[in-house]
Amino acid sequence: MKKGKTFDNIRIILVEPQVPGNTGAASRAMKNMGLSRLVLVNPWFAGHPQARYMAHGSEDVLENAEVCQNLDDAVASSVLVVGTSQRKRHGVPFVNPRQAAEAIHESARSGPVSVLFGREDRGLHNEELAHCQMLVSIPSSMAQPSLNLSQAVMVMAYELYSSVYQGGGKSLDYAPASEIASMYSHLERSLTLLGFQQWNDGDNYMKSLRRVFSRTRLERRDVATIHKLCGEIHKYANRLRDEYERGGDD
Amino acid sequence: MKKGKTFDNIRIILVEPQVPGNTGAASRAMKNMGLSRLVLVNPWFAGHPQARYMAHGSEDVLENAEVCQNLDDAVASSVLVVGTSQRKRHGVPFVNPRQAAEAIHESARSGPVSVLFGREDRGLHNEELAHCQMLVSIPSSMAQPSLNLSQAVMVMAYELYSSVYQGGGKSLDYAPASEIASMYSHLERSLTLLGFQQWNDGDNYMKSLRRVFSRTRLERRDVATIHKLCGEIHKYANRLRDEYERGGDD
Repeated sequence: MKKGKTFDNIRIILVEPQVPGNTGAASRAMKNMGLSRLVLVNPWFAGHPQARYMAHGSEDVLENAEVCQNLDDAVASSVLVVGTSQRKRHGVPFVNPRQAAEAIHESARSGPVSVLFGREDRGLHNEELAHCQMLVSIPSSMAQPSLNLSQAVMVMAYELYSSVYQGGGKSLDYAPASEIASMYSHLERSLTLLGFQQWNDGDNYMKSLRRVFSRTRLERRDVATIHKLCGEIHKYANRLRDEYERGGDD
Repeated sequence: MKKGKTFDNIRIILVEPQVPGNTGAASRAMKNMGLSRLVLVNPWFAGHPQARYMAHGSEDVLENAEVCQNLDDAVASSVLVVGTSQRKRHGVPFVNPRQAAEAIHESARSGPVSVLFGREDRGLHNEELAHCQMLVSIPSSMAQPSLNLSQAVMVMAYELYSSVYQGGGKSLDYAPASEIASMYSHLERSLTLLGFQQWNDGDNYMKSLRRVFSRTRLERRDVATIHKLCGEIHKYANRLRDEYERGGDD
């Protein structure tokens, strides 16, 4: 799939938004970050001038917004539904915006993904959260943990955009999950060749290494670097074994 | 320095803001993300009700804002001045918000850091950009590249916050630069022991590996993992050499 095409499958759903300016500002934040599919569930206003004013150059996103009467209709076709919430729910992955952005793009390769934002005053209700297969929590200070609705949309939209496009217009060539799996497999074979089984203190070394690498989103050339490293380890181990087997007689 | 203490040294400077609501919304974005030091340079309003309305729970940030008549006064004591701009300037580092957040926290350990945001309509003037030792560009779509002022403040504030505090309230124990330098040095010694000099195609392997690791912000336990890996390589190489030197006679 062409880079960036997943954006068309990402739907920003505002559930019962109350302040027209926020919906306009959310439209602008979306367009800033390459998103265009806005859905309003049972909005408490329609065509308000303050919404248009805040949309500022993004009136098209606002005007093309799909309006639904209830959330069931809004998420009907989605392959993944993500809710923004500060509260965990048992059994539902609870992630930060960066982790959510990865998961959203991954799912958006195969179909529509819905990202839900709740009311300005009370967020998403429990029965709405029950639709969500993943919850994203925007980290915020205890002193004022509540973000303005359009600011929350911006944070999520920014992570979605910058996970694909970095600053300065440079876009990165990320490695797909299958290539990363193959990299781990190569790394494990190489380290086994070096005699690795467990760390001395019993930790699983592959788990620790996976943790280091999974903190970033690897590009194809990063994966190539690790493969190269593994190749060198194989060569070294084979060379030493050959010398050892020849008994040092050359 | 205690984690999070650098936030008190970070000053958000709005240069000639024109729309009161944006200054209020910026105050809220700041407080959401643990920042409190707002500076207004020659604002085009004072004590406007729309600013207070948008500050929503962050009126203290707005009320405690320092007002300066010109930018020279505003940045006088700063150890680092960072400007937000979509345009590069010759000889000035041009980074994305995540990279800027790292640099800002690093400098804020030793003194005040100023982060400048320009006017809603025209951004920062050239003579204002000339004060900046670093420029940060928020990645955005060509379709609507211009962010609302308070949204730009949010993106930068969010990166400053989440570089220290991740979602779910979990804060990470990042390794300082000196420990990372020592990790690279250990890794290089280990790979030299394995006979690494250059990749076959002439690339510098340490440069490639640094690139992989510098894509993320390493925690202390990530650094410990790499040290452990190096330790195992040393043990393996020493064991093989011993066997080789004994000529396989055991």
